[in-house]
Amino acid sequence: MLCKICKSKGKREKAVIYLRHHRLALCREHFIEWFERQTEKTIKEFKMFSRKEKVLVAVSGGKDSLSLWFALNKLRYETYGLHISLGIEKWDYSKKSLEICRKFSDRIERPLIVFNLKEEFGYTIEEIAKGSKRKDVCSVCGSFKRYLMNKIAKEKGFKVVATGHNLDDESALLLSNTIRWEVGYLGRQSPVLPEEGGFARKVKPFCFLTEKETVSYAILNEIEYMKTGCPNAKEATSSHFKRALAYLEHQMPGTKLRFYKEFLRKAKPIFEKEVRGKVELNECQVCGMPTTAPVCSVCRTLQRLKEC
Amino acid sequence: MLCKICKSKGKREKAVIYLRHHRLALCREHFIEWFERQTEKTIKEFKMFSRKEKVLVAVSGGKDSLSLWFALNKLRYETYGLHISLGIEKWDYSKKSLEICRKFSDRIERPLIVFNLKEEFGYTIEEIAKGSKRKDVCSVCGSFKRYLMNKIAKEKGFKVVATGHNLDDESALLLSNTIRWEVGYLGRQSPVLPEEGGFARKVKPFCFLTEKETVSYAILNEIEYMKTGCPNAKEATSSHFKRALAYLEHQMPGTKLRFYKEFLRKAKPIFEKEVRGKVELNECQVCGMPTTAPVCSVCRTLQRLKEC
Repeated sequence: MLCKICKSKGKREKAVIYLRHHRLALCREHFIEWFERQTEKTIKEFKMFSRKEKVLVAVSGGKDSLSLWFALNKLRYETYGLHISLGIEKWDYSKKSLEICRKFSDRIERPLIVFNLKEEFGYTIEEIAKGSKRKDVCSVCGSFKRYLMNKIAKEKGFKVVATGHNLDDESALLLSNTIRWEVGYLGRQSPVLPEEGGFARKVKPFCFLTEKETVSYAILNEIEYMKTGCPNAKEATSSHFKRALAYLEHQMPGTKLRFYKEFLRKAKPIFEKEVRGKVELNECQVCGMPTTAPVCSVCRTLQRLKEC
Repeated sequence: MLCKICKSKGKREKAVIYLRHHRLALCREHFIEWFERQTEKTIKEFKMFSRKEKVLVAVSGGKDSLSLWFALNKLRYETYGLHISLGIEKWDYSKKSLEICRKFSDRIERPLIVFNLKEEFGYTIEEIAKGSKRKDVCSVCGSFKRYLMNKIAKEKGFKVVATGHNLDDESALLLSNTIRWEVGYLGRQSPVLPEEGGFARKVKPFCFLTEKETVSYAILNEIEYMKTGCPNAKEATSSHFKRALAYLEHQMPGTKLRFYKEFLRKAKPIFEKEVRGKVELNECQVCGMPTTAPVCSVCRTLQRLKEC
């Protein structure tokens, strides 16, 4: 297959990728160009941030987050990486993830902020999960990461935090919320969560790009990323929804993108009306971060650990 | 596996079916009892009809519609069958379907109303589809059947028309409407469409029963039904949604039922508000049935055929 853009210019260049739902075959150069233009378009469309704002990019060391940092930097945004080191020893997971992020930060010559859980809190994420009521490492880890993104953004003066969630993540989350008709979540799921009540603005510039596209972008830019997932990650229910959507996408190309875009256009405003103003936030008595309870769940978990 | 009900009564009876999402193994007798109780519960919950009303049951000759007629008759409702004979000659499809419905009507000793398309309109459904703008037989057939159900109900004095749609049909339709975020359809999809604007009340008493359950009910009651589908039916897009849901059901038993029930409970009222009062109906200038246009689509199609 030949690159469609090159062809239109009278050149013959082999395509490196075929984007079935866009019916688009592209060479390396034009795929990268297309990918970055899509990213920029999403940033503009949802007014995610401007070139005057500092953007904190949450990086795990995986393909999505490093691709995001790379693309935003190339698009001349003022980016800073944030890596939360969880203290997972199995497979040297946390050590290797940190190394990869540091190396990447050196490569693109942008600063990396590292938050080391064990050093700051005295516990690794697995120790925290064991001492928490929920026990499930993944959900505890998720809530600690969200908390820390907000807290570090606030302390370091960032108004925006960007994460590498892609279309596969977002459409699977949407399907999961839809199958359960979680009206509250449906009213809030968005490529941009506004800055409010002490929370930083949360943005997902890759929300319309598939995992296939983000991984291709990483490879074509020779980004070194963590190929293994977290050793604690079990078969998540989200993978069932991803697979159901992959099946529908295969049968009807464009399903994922349409499902998510039409949701944002037609259904989200309807759900939004239902949930508006239903959450009241106040400051956590311990850390001062916004919470619905007197003490936020992160501080409660840490207090419980200290009492043990 | 043993029947759970028999077991609770100290008897040992082999189960004929295992309802995974209800974690229920049942023998022939108790499955039939359970199935009919579920049907009755749905009729009551949605105030579909009472024992004082005559119910027109639309029967194609397939397992769902004949099971429905059988169950409603056994539950002592006053039922009348309605079979629309489409004139499909391939595989002797329409001839066999009619025979099966007649035999069944004799068996349960309830009257069958037959509407023969070729005799009444002068065309078979395939001839009508060829002359229509849409060409797709399935969609033309669907709109003619809906039209005739209403018309015949009106002419014969029925206020209620019951169809055999099961949970697999309803949840696949729901997923299809959801994936496309068809807000209008989402606001109207329901186990009962009220009698209004000249339309009969439309009810689906099997909407919470799976296809596996309706086919088992048919077999256990020795109902003779058409095993082949319509020869015109292509791989419908609904089958993709059925398969995606079957996958999710397999991974997370109860998904289909929860998806549909929670929709009715939590989401439908929200969509309903959006579509309320948006459709204005008047009488068709030719046949007098309700329509949004001056002449209804069925009359327009028939007029066009006569002009050819």
